[in-house]
Amino acid sequence: MSSSFGTLFTISTFGESHGIGVGAVVDGVPAGMSLSEADIQPQLDRRRPGQSDLTTPRQEADQVSILSGVERGLTLGTPIGLLVRNKDQRPGDYGEMSQIPRPSHADYTYQMKYGIRASSGGGRSSARETIARVAAGAIAEKVLREQWGVEIVAWVSSIGDIDAPELDCQGITREQVDATLSRCPDPAAASRMEDLVREVRDAADSIGGVITCVCRNVPAGWGEPVFDRLEAKLAQAMLSLPATKGFEIGSGFAGSRMLGSVHNDPFVQKGARLGTLTNHAGGVLGGISSGEPVLFRVPFKPVATIGKTQQTADFEGNPVELAAKGRHDPCVVPRAVPIVETTAALVLLDLALRQKMRQ
Amino acid sequence: MSSSFGTLFTISTFGESHGIGVGAVVDGVPAGMSLSEADIQPQLDRRRPGQSDLTTPRQEADQVSILSGVERGLTLGTPIGLLVRNKDQRPGDYGEMSQIPRPSHADYTYQMKYGIRASSGGGRSSARETIARVAAGAIAEKVLREQWGVEIVAWVSSIGDIDAPELDCQGITREQVDATLSRCPDPAAASRMEDLVREVRDAADSIGGVITCVCRNVPAGWGEPVFDRLEAKLAQAMLSLPATKGFEIGSGFAGSRMLGSVHNDPFVQKGARLGTLTNHAGGVLGGISSGEPVLFRVPFKPVATIGKTQQTADFEGNPVELAAKGRHDPCVVPRAVPIVETTAALVLLDLALRQKMRQ
Amino acid sequence: MSSSFGTLFTISTFGESHGIGVGAVVDGVPAGMSLSEADIQPQLDRRRPGQSDLTTPRQEADQVSILSGVERGLTLGTPIGLLVRNKDQRPGDYGEMSQIPRPSHADYTYQMKYGIRASSGGGRSSARETIARVAAGAIAEKVLREQWGVEIVAWVSSIGDIDAPELDCQGITREQVDATLSRCPDPAAASRMEDLVREVRDAADSIGGVITCVCRNVPAGWGEPVFDRLEAKLAQAMLSLPATKGFEIGSGFAGSRMLGSVHNDPFVQKGARLGTLTNHAGGVLGGISSGEPVLFRVPFKPVATIGKTQQTADFEGNPVELAAKGRHDPCVVPRAVPIVETTAALVLLDLALRQKMRQ
Amino acid sequence: MSSSFGTLFTISTFGESHGIGVGAVVDGVPAGMSLSEADIQPQLDRRRPGQSDLTTPRQEADQVSILSGVERGLTLGTPIGLLVRNKDQRPGDYGEMSQIPRPSHADYTYQMKYGIRASSGGGRSSARETIARVAAGAIAEKVLREQWGVEIVAWVSSIGDIDAPELDCQGITREQVDATLSRCPDPAAASRMEDLVREVRDAADSIGGVITCVCRNVPAGWGEPVFDRLEAKLAQAMLSLPATKGFEIGSGFAGSRMLGSVHNDPFVQKGARLGTLTNHAGGVLGGISSGEPVLFRVPFKPVATIGKTQQTADFEGNPVELAAKGRHDPCVVPRAVPIVETTAALVLLDLALRQKMRQ
Repeated sequence: MSSSFGTLFTISTFGESHGIGVGAVVDGVPAGMSLSEADIQPQLDRRRPGQSDLTTPRQEADQVSILSGVERGLTLGTPIGLLVRNKDQRPGDYGEMSQIPRPSHADYTYQMKYGIRASSGGGRSSARETIARVAAGAIAEKVLREQWGVEIVAWVSSIGDIDAPELDCQGITREQVDATLSRCPDPAAASRMEDLVREVRDAADSIGGVITCVCRNVPAGWGEPVFDRLEAKLAQAMLSLPATKGFEIGSGFAGSRMLGSVHNDPFVQKGARLGTLTNHAGGVLGGISSGEPVLFRVPFKPVATIGKTQQTADFEGNPVELAAKGRHDPCVVPRAVPIVETTAALVLLDLALRQKMRQ
Repeated sequence: MSSSFGTLFTISTFGESHGIGVGAVVDGVPAGMSLSEADIQPQLDRRRPGQSDLTTPRQEADQVSILSGVERGLTLGTPIGLLVRNKDQRPGDYGEMSQIPRPSHADYTYQMKYGIRASSGGGRSSARETIARVAAGAIAEKVLREQWGVEIVAWVSSIGDIDAPELDCQGITREQVDATLSRCPDPAAASRMEDLVREVRDAADSIGGVITCVCRNVPAGWGEPVFDRLEAKLAQAMLSLPATKGFEIGSGFAGSRMLGSVHNDPFVQKGARLGTLTNHAGGVLGGISSGEPVLFRVPFKPVATIGKTQQTADFEGNPVELAAKGRHDPCVVPRAVPIVETTAALVLLDLALRQKMRQ
Repeated sequence: MSSSFGTLFTISTFGESHGIGVGAVVDGVPAGMSLSEADIQPQLDRRRPGQSDLTTPRQEADQVSILSGVERGLTLGTPIGLLVRNKDQRPGDYGEMSQIPRPSHADYTYQMKYGIRASSGGGRSSARETIARVAAGAIAEKVLREQWGVEIVAWVSSIGDIDAPELDCQGITREQVDATLSRCPDPAAASRMEDLVREVRDAADSIGGVITCVCRNVPAGWGEPVFDRLEAKLAQAMLSLPATKGFEIGSGFAGSRMLGSVHNDPFVQKGARLGTLTNHAGGVLGGISSGEPVLFRVPFKPVATIGKTQQTADFEGNPVELAAKGRHDPCVVPRAVPIVETTAALVLLDLALRQKMRQ
Repeated sequence: MSSSFGTLFTISTFGESHGIGVGAVVDGVPAGMSLSEADIQPQLDRRRPGQSDLTTPRQEADQVSILSGVERGLTLGTPIGLLVRNKDQRPGDYGEMSQIPRPSHADYTYQMKYGIRASSGGGRSSARETIARVAAGAIAEKVLREQWGVEIVAWVSSIGDIDAPELDCQGITREQVDATLSRCPDPAAASRMEDLVREVRDAADSIGGVITCVCRNVPAGWGEPVFDRLEAKLAQAMLSLPATKGFEIGSGFAGSRMLGSVHNDPFVQKGARLGTLTNHAGGVLGGISSGEPVLFRVPFKPVATIGKTQQTADFEGNPVELAAKGRHDPCVVPRAVPIVETTAALVLLDLALRQKMRQ
């Protein structure tokens, strides 16, 4: 059941990049909530290709259809079927490529695991699979917002070696994030990032980056010790996204270099609740949300498909040269911003519903 | 079911730090394998307190008993009950502390989640809970070693700002790791780390560090797309450990700064199999093991309990000063080495058994 | 995740009776198997309404589409999306009925559980939901047949008080079952059953019946002690079907009246394997298949929707009279035969794949 | 994870009949509830052997210990470890028997499944495994009683061909049930049942029976469509008990013989809620509790171990004679009464907690 995620709020995804479409069954959505495709489409639009000259010029509408679970504009509490049809694209004649596992792609490992792979290569490892999660996560975001006022905002905090300055995670908005093509809310850093991406693109190469995400207004008490800690489920969900190579919550790797007397977050009264002066913890203590903002970072490796010629080997082990044709993203992180947000929502809503068993 | 982990090889843990004991039910162990407490105890011994002057001077034997699933020295294929009794320690009179949530501990969030907490504070967030995982993981290690020749070795790669030089992950052994008190196999770095830990200890403070882990001889094909990717389940498992604040596989955060043409791992024939020249991927492609070493890093924050006086607030929000009494680890990472190894084994064996459905 | 079933071979269903369609995501199908809609449609055709004058005269084509997981006629090992579109049927004006919970329907309990219900009443409790299971189960049947030679045959063994004589469960075929409209392979009993159904239909009433099912060539060793015993998962699956009120395996209720010396099935050599002379066990011992035919029975209550006037109460508790309009089945058991077969296949394939972890 | 059951209220059992003990990890118990061994022991006492001359004369105390999850008499919300030690009984020298799979026992199928089996035969298929469920279920009963006023009462409704008259399921109490050795609350029937059991016992034979169970005060709304319907989970749980061969809810098999106009349960106002005049449904509609009593029946086959000589075959297929030595129950159903009750509680509490996600 590895295409499923969640205990009470659950998602099961399906679909290859070159088949009829991609979709999901979403279960656990509360009944009686107003819901339509218009609630879901905006995050898909932020994710889709062709948004700017920083992304692949491929154009895909990625229009979502709700197949079930909603009637007369209200959720029934039953599973919601979601479908996004692929544009009519038959698995091409990949001739040469079918004999060559693309470096740092999943061609080789899918072949070893299943004894077969989608002729188009990508299959389930394709970034198109994330469409289903974004659609499901957009529903989760709506529930979280309406029931608890949760706000989730992600942004690009670095591309290559260009780092945005530390940002105020309390105030940042999606509007600020979307104000630049690179989705870095610091205009100066954004400008340099965009120059870098264009330079890399023109060199037929690719570049990675880091996304930072904050979840505000998460009540204290979410997260299930011990294996389903909030940060553990976030880490699983983020590392299940294509191209991610890590995860940090709060102080992260830098925290490992600190003294306890510096790292500890002192408690202090904050309005009606207890809070902390600092937030090295990243909003979790013992795997449970503390009421402070949940703050995490996810690094994305550079896109594996590049136009530059690479020396590699075919499935038989013979040395070959490979240069990808077609149109690819030089840098995925701007488009990954809504993916990280909606994936965080999948985690949070499931833990929110699980906490209800105690109420 | 948040104290359980795994799909086919599963573990369910129980136990508080100040109760009768901690333990686990381990299911999915292959039948007919020789097994006794002697297979499990060595990793518990590497984990237990009191091993050196770098750790808490508390002495606990942490002797494991097998309660079921083994007869005449052979596993039956049925659940294995494991129990490690706590030494006779009644929940003390925590007087003052019971009114003060310790900074960066789980006292506050357990109270908010459950409306009650263990009087000793730690409860399930205590590091003692990991005893159950280490015991279960030691069984998993044995299965992995005997059936596939898998070798898992973890070591301390940094404490505070002292970094070990890059090590040859192909050759490193547990003997090399255990040759120093700090479990850093580079003697020079180890010596400086140990000096730092003693300095921190004498200052009644604590310090964090990073553990690196390699899993060798993992066959290609383990890992279940899309939510149960190998790196996703490793990330969940590692972030479910107390004090961890992140996870990296392969190139990790540094990989986000690279060009695709540099980061891509070219394929090359390696003996009878296809391998890669570099291993920025960290042994996984598309969430599935590639046959290259699985390589990951886990940062641990400094221990929250310190003797130094801290300014904080009690549950009512009143400012208070707190200074921990008792004996605590100034740095947990040396003792966390076997925890990381055995936790990795829990993940790998479950995915190994799941891949069998395709054979 | 209550619309999902299975551990390794899994199904997640969605869809209301009056929405866009019903469907499923099916995961765990082995890779490299030839598969097309033509493998699935026959069982849907055996299930669909309008087959004879014994069933509702409603006509629905119930054509299945495979949305993913198959390429060039072969399964990829990835999730298979299935969709059966409903004919264009807007939720009608149920005016009166929306205020009256239909007796022995789920209108009342859905309202109590979700605080809302599909205006058409049926929603997820509708028998249309079973379309998704039949489609998924038809795939499971193909895997079971090709990999292990498993044959599953169900038939109508009673309708009302008309019982078919005991049949030879070793020889019975689907062709024999389909030779009569009632799907009772005993022609004499079938004829009397059909007369009864027509009589009931003409009285605007309904009648129940029992389906018996045999699974042949199930190898010894399937079934997971203790909660996922073969008979336990069969019982769950059968009782999760609409209108079922029970389950028996082997001797069933009658077995409770026997002496142990009569009920015990003596072992005897059967060709290359050990078998039993009798099969009161119904093919399972200790929850694990024995190699003998798995034999079980499922009673279906009479259809709740009847044309006859019924005295009942509306949601406010006011006494009302209700007489269903529209066209309904006087007896569902002939159409339920493929549902029972395919549901059994869902159970067996999951347990078959789980047993592979031991090989 | 086949020794585990439940989604939010979960149980994982372990233990063989001849090992150190049997036990369970119970997760999902609400925090802050008073709990001690004294809440659990009574149901274990009703289950234990040696209660009367109707049961095996073996004497076992079956004293439960709580290992975790409770402090100062209150639950912490964390997993509760339970252990019942076996009396010191080493796996005997079963000499002859180890070569002969006992008819209608699991010796043969465990050997086929695992390639090994406990030398004592029973292993996990032994009725001793149910001790862990009874202990866990006794905790569930307490939660259900305190939070919702749920009352669960089971009784023996038939042994062999001796049927108790239909009883008033609204009024029946455990005291009435325990008033007779046979746990049949009808004294006349009980007396005849007890005579029959003694007669069977003296003939070195065994006999089966049926247990009926009612769950009162179950609120409307419990049960998760579609695979985790209330009756589906009850059926799974009951069929996962040793020696059970079936399950009926409400009208059961008899319902399949009725007309819809007779079987339908008309709604009627009952105090503040809507109820039904009859209860052929058995308290569930569409898999969801209706507020009417949940009523089900479970048949138990005769005990397989009998003193009478049986003709059978050894593992090699050679014909042999077998006569069990030792002391066995001639009829298990009186002792199975608390097993059925506590198993029902496991199901109900899990579904109760799952319904809380909607509140």
